[in-house]
Amino acid sequence: MTIENEAADFAEPVVVLVRPQLAENVGTTARAMLNCGLKRLRLVVPREDHLSDKAMAASSGASIVLERAGVFNSTEEALADCHFAVATTARRRDMVKPVLRPDAAAEALRQKVNEGLRGAIIFGPERTGLENDDVALADKIVEIPLNPDYSSLNLAQAVLVMGYEWFKSGVDRPAEELPMRESRPATKHELQVFFEKLEKELDDSGFLRVKEKRPRMVRNIRNMFERAELTDQEVRTLHGMIRDLSTYRKGQQS
Amino acid sequence: MTIENEAADFAEPVVVLVRPQLAENVGTTARAMLNCGLKRLRLVVPREDHLSDKAMAASSGASIVLERAGVFNSTEEALADCHFAVATTARRRDMVKPVLRPDAAAEALRQKVNEGLRGAIIFGPERTGLENDDVALADKIVEIPLNPDYSSLNLAQAVLVMGYEWFKSGVDRPAEELPMRESRPATKHELQVFFEKLEKELDDSGFLRVKEKRPRMVRNIRNMFERAELTDQEVRTLHGMIRDLSTYRKGQQS
Repeated sequence: MTIENEAADFAEPVVVLVRPQLAENVGTTARAMLNCGLKRLRLVVPREDHLSDKAMAASSGASIVLERAGVFNSTEEALADCHFAVATTARRRDMVKPVLRPDAAAEALRQKVNEGLRGAIIFGPERTGLENDDVALADKIVEIPLNPDYSSLNLAQAVLVMGYEWFKSGVDRPAEELPMRESRPATKHELQVFFEKLEKELDDSGFLRVKEKRPRMVRNIRNMFERAELTDQEVRTLHGMIRDLSTYRKGQQS
Repeated sequence: MTIENEAADFAEPVVVLVRPQLAENVGTTARAMLNCGLKRLRLVVPREDHLSDKAMAASSGASIVLERAGVFNSTEEALADCHFAVATTARRRDMVKPVLRPDAAAEALRQKVNEGLRGAIIFGPERTGLENDDVALADKIVEIPLNPDYSSLNLAQAVLVMGYEWFKSGVDRPAEELPMRESRPATKHELQVFFEKLEKELDDSGFLRVKEKRPRMVRNIRNMFERAELTDQEVRTLHGMIRDLSTYRKGQQS
């Protein structure tokens, strides 16, 4: 089998399912692949029809992956035009072959693909996993770290974990960010004005009346608000809250 | 509701499913959780019975997670005894709340748990996701990076990605390793003896006959074998291969 129009566009690894047993699992695999931007599926001697209604339904709208999938007679054939392949296994094999963490496998695949080479991720049949002869066709093994007491992963879930690592390896996203939409972080001046207003009202209301405790209490209150990484809008809201709370108190007092 | 025996053992975050719609998804979630060593499931107003046959079948042997799951009337109630919670969302919310990468969320949860605090990962209903009022109960948001053109992730798959990151954050595994079982890396002396044997046979057979090319060819051959990170056993195998190939050739010549 040849894959149409593949030579021009090979910006992602192919996913090779060796002897998948259930059409439904091929469908959910297609969905997991598309979630992760993977669209090239190759099936080695699938037991059921990957274009069946069951497979299509299970793919939840990722049917394009199934429609474009290639069917091969052997793992060798499915890998023939690839330059680098990793084989996913759940258990250690009695083979001397490098074992990668999924994130390291994704990095390795991305590096190959960036060099214009074709990469493949190979998955074995449900239950039994890849045979050793299939694993031997790969450059490296990738093992998904999982609960050793319960590591049986559904086929589509194994594909999802690898696909997720693949997608992640191509995304430059900070570990943590604070999106502020139309807002922006408050300036230190805006905070300073707010702190002075707040502390004046707390003085007036009697909250800060114990003189020797006042400096420490003021610091603690300032730290609390500093920690919140307030926006300019939120500082305005706080101003309004303090104003209305004080006005209410003053009204009560009069 | 109170959870039995929880206080003593809280070495992992709880998974909170808010208003899950399908028992099957609760079952596959239980399976994904157990894959990742997560056993504490809390359900907020589930539409279907999480102990139904359908849920149990979908859990594929992870029924203990379903049996021990707690059911709550509100997200507030499910989170009441937790100290730190992250809310998973597929889309950006109009809220000023820190957004974590899944790996950073796992690290944050592990740090809290290591401090003896209780962590929670909150997932919304299928299709609609968490409501903003639920998200507001969390300390931080976690976004799973996925194909923006097709990011609808099955509930159990979202749980799997977060669980996988959780499990990974507790495992100290090298990015790449080369397991050798009973074998060990060949020593440089063993390689040297093999290279000398090989080069002698290649000289005798005529392969290295072009004198000015010999040094470079020898280096290239040595590099090829050095790159393979050979074991002592493999070097013995190579010795045997060379011996038999040479004997055959010598037999042919005689």
